[in-house]
Amino acid sequence: MKLYTSHRTPNPRRVLMFIAEKGITGIELVPVDLFKGEHRREEFTGMNPMAQIPVLELDDGRQLAETRAICTYLEGLYPEPNLMGAGFEERAFIEMADRRAELQLFLKIANCIRHTHPGLAPLEQPQFADFGAAQGQKMRDTARWLDGVLAGQQYVAGDRFTIADITAFCALEFARGLMKFRPGEEGLGHLQAWRDRMAERPSAQAI
Amino acid sequence: MKLYTSHRTPNPRRVLMFIAEKGITGIELVPVDLFKGEHRREEFTGMNPMAQIPVLELDDGRQLAETRAICTYLEGLYPEPNLMGAGFEERAFIEMADRRAELQLFLKIANCIRHTHPGLAPLEQPQFADFGAAQGQKMRDTARWLDGVLAGQQYVAGDRFTIADITAFCALEFARGLMKFRPGEEGLGHLQAWRDRMAERPSAQAI
Repeated sequence: MKLYTSHRTPNPRRVLMFIAEKGITGIELVPVDLFKGEHRREEFTGMNPMAQIPVLELDDGRQLAETRAICTYLEGLYPEPNLMGAGFEERAFIEMADRRAELQLFLKIANCIRHTHPGLAPLEQPQFADFGAAQGQKMRDTARWLDGVLAGQQYVAGDRFTIADITAFCALEFARGLMKFRPGEEGLGHLQAWRDRMAERPSAQAI
Repeated sequence: MKLYTSHRTPNPRRVLMFIAEKGITGIELVPVDLFKGEHRREEFTGMNPMAQIPVLELDDGRQLAETRAICTYLEGLYPEPNLMGAGFEERAFIEMADRRAELQLFLKIANCIRHTHPGLAPLEQPQFADFGAAQGQKMRDTARWLDGVLAGQQYVAGDRFTIADITAFCALEFARGLMKFRPGEEGLGHLQAWRDRMAERPSAQAI
């Protein structure tokens, strides 16, 4: 299999961390240079018309896009360790936690950065700085809620490491790099402690 | 089970249509009045801290939020007809199609309506009208892409009806009601024909 990816970008990082947690080896990484616009060239949009990374090319030549769908495929191919739920009940509750991490944290961070950071202007046109700034505030509401959740449990979805931890960690690392957001500096000690525990996992180096 | 829902709102509609396609009966519907702010009261946020509908209360008393996670649970409980994929490969490809419908169509339509429609001001603060208008344009790019997809296949994810059709249909019906968007009037005949076929399904009346 081949993974079309880009260095230090948050969605590919989610898949790379997922792969590392599973201990999967042998997937060839194919770099795509976003700032050269390679994701908008026909060669790439033929694989993913959404012009987004990552894309997983399967051994039969089919191409699968969308971060979480790629993880669903890899979870099926490499069931252990289970990261997305064993059985439909746990799968549903982990999906709830993962969607909250993605839609309420990751997406707001991405909106804030893409609409306010001058360096992201080549990737987000038009930029709406006021909208971006408001998203940065709203993601803090989510961070505060997550801090409260992590006061009572070790991981985002409950008592074990799951895909929801990967999504939330990659979101916070994106915010750490480009928004200088540090939960601990904003009084969110449980979230900071969880982030620091996640950063110690070997899979956090997969980027 | 109980489903906390609100009349004529797009995310609950996705779950109601899913339930109707499955032929599931016996789920009690509990109305939540968004314009009275009932979703922001403690009684509701205790069930879903994101203050969003729908929420499914299970028979054991646990509460499951997030539209697609609710569908995952119901798919497990009522496997037929299959709407989310049989086996992990199909599950992954349907998830890709469903995410494109949700993130590239539904979300942009919702952003456009919530940020530009005066009637939605009680639900979206602050509103950024320029951002909303740009999202309305970007959703048209997705609609054009989807029109091309539907030129070559009968359903959003391929050759059979799936959750991705539900997501895309409920998105377009939201745009039809509040953006007056009609694919046929914008030259997207395949998308319009697909929409009209979906509207004939009995499940389209579940709202």
